Amino acid sequence: MDLALLFSGGKDSSLAALLLSEFYDVTLVTTHFGVTDDWSHAEATARTLELPFEAVELDQDVAAEAVETMREDGFPRNGIQRVHEHALETVAERDVAAIGDGTRRDDRVPSVSRAQAQSLEDRHDIDYIAPLSGFGRGAVDRLADARLEVESGPSEDIRKGDYETELRALLREDGGEEAVRDVFPDHTQTRVVGLR
Amino acid sequence: MDLALLFSGGKDSSLAALLLSEFYDVTLVTTHFGVTDDWSHAEATARTLELPFEAVELDQDVAAEAVETMREDGFPRNGIQRVHEHALETVAERDVAAIGDGTRRDDRVPSVSRAQAQSLEDRHDIDYIAPLSGFGRGAVDRLADARLEVESGPSEDIRKGDYETELRALLREDGGEEAVRDVFPDHTQTRVVGLR
Repeated sequence: MDLALLFSGGKDSSLAALLLSEFYDVTLVTTHFGVTDDWSHAEATARTLELPFEAVELDQDVAAEAVETMREDGFPRNGIQRVHEHALETVAERDVAAIGDGTRRDDRVPSVSRAQAQSLEDRHDIDYIAPLSGFGRGAVDRLADARLEVESGPSEDIRKGDYETELRALLREDGGEEAVRDVFPDHTQTRVVGLR
Repeated sequence: MDLALLFSGGKDSSLAALLLSEFYDVTLVTTHFGVTDDWSHAEATARTLELPFEAVELDQDVAAEAVETMREDGFPRNGIQRVHEHALETVAERDVAAIGDGTRRDDRVPSVSRAQAQSLEDRHDIDYIAPLSGFGRGAVDRLADARLEVESGPSEDIRKGDYETELRALLREDGGEEAVRDVFPDHTQTRVVGLR
C-alpha cells in the first residue's frame, strides 16, 4: 500500500517514516511554496533514510495568509496550523492508499483532531495516519536517540526542508530578522543526518 | 528498551505488537482475574507472533466492581474502562522502559486521554505508548488483512485472552447468558491465528 508522508527532514517525521515503512510503501513528501530551495535539505535526509522523495508545491496565497496571521498574532501557531491543513489536503489528492504526518501526542501545533482526520479520510477516500500520535515527547526522543543521528540547534543554524523555513523567509523579507523573532522566539529545530 | 504491551490476542493488540517490536523488546502481557484460563488463548497467539508472553493477575475486587458497574449501566463501557486503567497501573509497576496498549483512534473504550497518559508516565517513570492511536479503524483493518490471519465472530465463539472474557464469565455466573447479553449485545471479537 502506498503512503505519502509529510516530511521535513526533522526527527519526528523521520521517525514516523521508519515506523511506517515496515507496513507501507512510503514516499516522503516535502511541501514548499517555491520561496527557497530548503526542501533540498529534506531530500538529503530522505536519501539517508533510503526512501523515495518528492517535493510538492503548495498554494502561495496560503503562505501569504499564514504569514499575515502569524504577524498579527505574534506567535506561529495559527499560521502553521493553516499551512499544515493545506499541505494535508494537497497531499490527500495523490493517488495513494494513505497519507501521514509526524505529529506527536504532545504537539499543540500542528494538530489534527479525530474529527478532522475522519473528514480527510471520508472526503479523499484515503487513510490518514499519525503514527507518533500515541508517543509522548520522551518516547520520541529516546527512540530517535536509539535509531537516528540528529543535529539540533536554533532555527538559523539548522536548515530543514519544511514550509516553516519558508514562512520565516517570508517574514524576514518584509520585516527583517526582528519580524522572525517576534513570531518564533527561541525555536529549536532538528535535522536527521544519519541512521544508527 | 523493554516494553510491556497489554495483549488480548486480538487484531488490535497483535498489530500494535508488530509495530512496536521493530523498536522495542516487546513482552506481551495478558492480564486476567484468575476466573478462567482464557489467557492461554492469548499465549497461543503470542507464540504465533514469536514474542515473549506473560500472564499477570489483577485485583479481583476491581473485577467485582466493574461487573457491578456494567450490570447497573446495562452497557460495558465504564466497567471496561475501569479494568483497563487498573491493568495499565499494574503493568506500569514492572521494571520496563515503556508500556503500551492497542487502543485505536476511533475507540471509545478503553480510552486513555493525553492527561491520563502523562500522569501514568510521570508517576511510574515510564513511557506509555499507544501505537495505533494514530490509525483509524479502516487503516487497522487493512493492515491486519495484509499481515495477520484473523478469525472473527461473536464473543461466544471467539475465545480471546483478555479480561473481557472473564468479565463476561462473572456476569454469567450470577445472571446466566441473559445477563451477558444485557451488557454486551452483538459483540464481535477477533483472534489472531497466524502471520501472513
